[in-house]
Amino acid sequence: MKAIASFILPVLMLVARAAEPLPSWNDTETRKSIIAFVEKTATEGSSDFVPVPERIAVFDNDGTLWSEQPMYFQLAFVIDRVKALAPDHPEWKEKEPFASLLKGDAKGVAASGQKGLMELLAVTHTGMTIGEFETIVTAWLATAKHPKSGRPYTEMVFQPMVELLGYLREKGYKTFIVSGGGIEFMRPWTEKVYGIPPEQVVGSSGKLKYEMKDGKPVLTKLPEIDLIDDKEGKPVGIQSHIGRRPIFAAGNSDGDFQMLEWTTSGKGPRFGLIVHHTDAEREYAYDRDSHFGKLDKAMDEAPKRGWVLVDMKKDWATIYPEK
Amino acid sequence: MKAIASFILPVLMLVARAAEPLPSWNDTETRKSIIAFVEKTATEGSSDFVPVPERIAVFDNDGTLWSEQPMYFQLAFVIDRVKALAPDHPEWKEKEPFASLLKGDAKGVAASGQKGLMELLAVTHTGMTIGEFETIVTAWLATAKHPKSGRPYTEMVFQPMVELLGYLREKGYKTFIVSGGGIEFMRPWTEKVYGIPPEQVVGSSGKLKYEMKDGKPVLTKLPEIDLIDDKEGKPVGIQSHIGRRPIFAAGNSDGDFQMLEWTTSGKGPRFGLIVHHTDAEREYAYDRDSHFGKLDKAMDEAPKRGWVLVDMKKDWATIYPEK
Repeated sequence: MKAIASFILPVLMLVARAAEPLPSWNDTETRKSIIAFVEKTATEGSSDFVPVPERIAVFDNDGTLWSEQPMYFQLAFVIDRVKALAPDHPEWKEKEPFASLLKGDAKGVAASGQKGLMELLAVTHTGMTIGEFETIVTAWLATAKHPKSGRPYTEMVFQPMVELLGYLREKGYKTFIVSGGGIEFMRPWTEKVYGIPPEQVVGSSGKLKYEMKDGKPVLTKLPEIDLIDDKEGKPVGIQSHIGRRPIFAAGNSDGDFQMLEWTTSGKGPRFGLIVHHTDAEREYAYDRDSHFGKLDKAMDEAPKRGWVLVDMKKDWATIYPEK
Repeated sequence: MKAIASFILPVLMLVARAAEPLPSWNDTETRKSIIAFVEKTATEGSSDFVPVPERIAVFDNDGTLWSEQPMYFQLAFVIDRVKALAPDHPEWKEKEPFASLLKGDAKGVAASGQKGLMELLAVTHTGMTIGEFETIVTAWLATAKHPKSGRPYTEMVFQPMVELLGYLREKGYKTFIVSGGGIEFMRPWTEKVYGIPPEQVVGSSGKLKYEMKDGKPVLTKLPEIDLIDDKEGKPVGIQSHIGRRPIFAAGNSDGDFQMLEWTTSGKGPRFGLIVHHTDAEREYAYDRDSHFGKLDKAMDEAPKRGWVLVDMKKDWATIYPEK
């Protein structure tokens, strides 16, 4: 009997630990408040019970589910793509914003403003089919490395947030990405990395054209913007794609303000979460003055609106998945 | 023993009958081909097996899931709404297309063309919040009756198609509506009637604006078109909302041609279904010459492309749900 117990007990403990939600979160007030909310909304008979179809949770991507420093990863993709395409475009050596970009002159690129950015997006994201773009993104992610960690970008995701997505789904929530990033830039990998299928990804998007190419139908990406899924665009993207108001929203910057506001101003139980980047050692520390993921107004408003601020340094036991 | 058998046997037979898919379909080649396709794609080890995440099925709505005669039901809504709003708009008595519509002069309305239609849609579908529009649609559906049957419009759905939706979902398919009808006109009732939640409804849509109203955030419907989810617009709507190519598509008109083409020209097993309205007695009989749901090119192309034509009269044992 003793022999069996000594075998069974550790197994039981392992099971118990595995069943404990959010293992990469320290057991702080933040973790407790998330679990309390999820439990009360998913427990039949609770006064805050929410039926399964209304358990909609939306997550920003850049800076919320994965890192966004030293620059948005999609911007790193743009730079790498311009470099890869440059041999076929000798004229870029004299033409802004390409000339500055190829010289590594960030200020020069910035000087070309919104118009310059649109040109960079046009040459790297449009004039090809959806399938061709997917192939390019997938190939880039397979080889590109984050400049600080040297890890593939898809490993620069926040383990505590990946666990939160899984925990919500276990409790009957449907999880969506609602990101300022490009919808087709995310779809090729979100299912594998986050467990979020393409039909639950909302992002910035360009217009598409259905046409015949070599006798086969294709969808071509056009250089015209359809939706900028940021700020006021986020509730619009949510309505367009989801068609009902979420009850749980997580973001990390002022770009998520309206999504948090829209989500938490509905009736009944609501949860707003903001990831505050406070960990210069394990990730990055930034907020009000950052070029990427500026967090200012949303941080000031958080206490008034009952939004929970994740203090990355204190609340997260782990940042990235194990190698 | 005999007593038990006489009790058990009928129960077993009931269970067997309930488990038989598509009970409102006659056991024709059409029914057989649908079942053969669904079984082979959902059976592990089959050479045509399709993993669950890729089992995406798209359905047109008007004329495919519910009737569309003597006019699109959404057009009946427009007419009723204009009449309801007319007392507040005395100027409509002199102004087209309102004057003709209020006099019941269909030709006069038609004479105002695309521009007139847009004006009718603008006054009945925009300038209000998403929530206000949902309330109006729900109230209309609760009272409006189909002119021929006298039944509520939500009972004018095709029982065999409702069963097909359920059968596909049972077999791991995710079912979507991809309709030329308005996305927000469908969302308030598709979950209850078809088992299709709002986030799986794709339709024609107008632009939305996020703004504050009486201190609360709202989404206002603007009189600018975002997507016309018909013809070439259907594959665009599919990519925008679903992000992968369906393997099963059902439509009933030339407006569904590109959706059927896009779906069935992908690799691997594909199924294209066209509901042909052949039953003047129980429903309606129309195709090439109809104002609503014209079926011409898609019918000619069906045999070449392997699309299955449902002959409503022969293939369907029942048309509408029991009262």
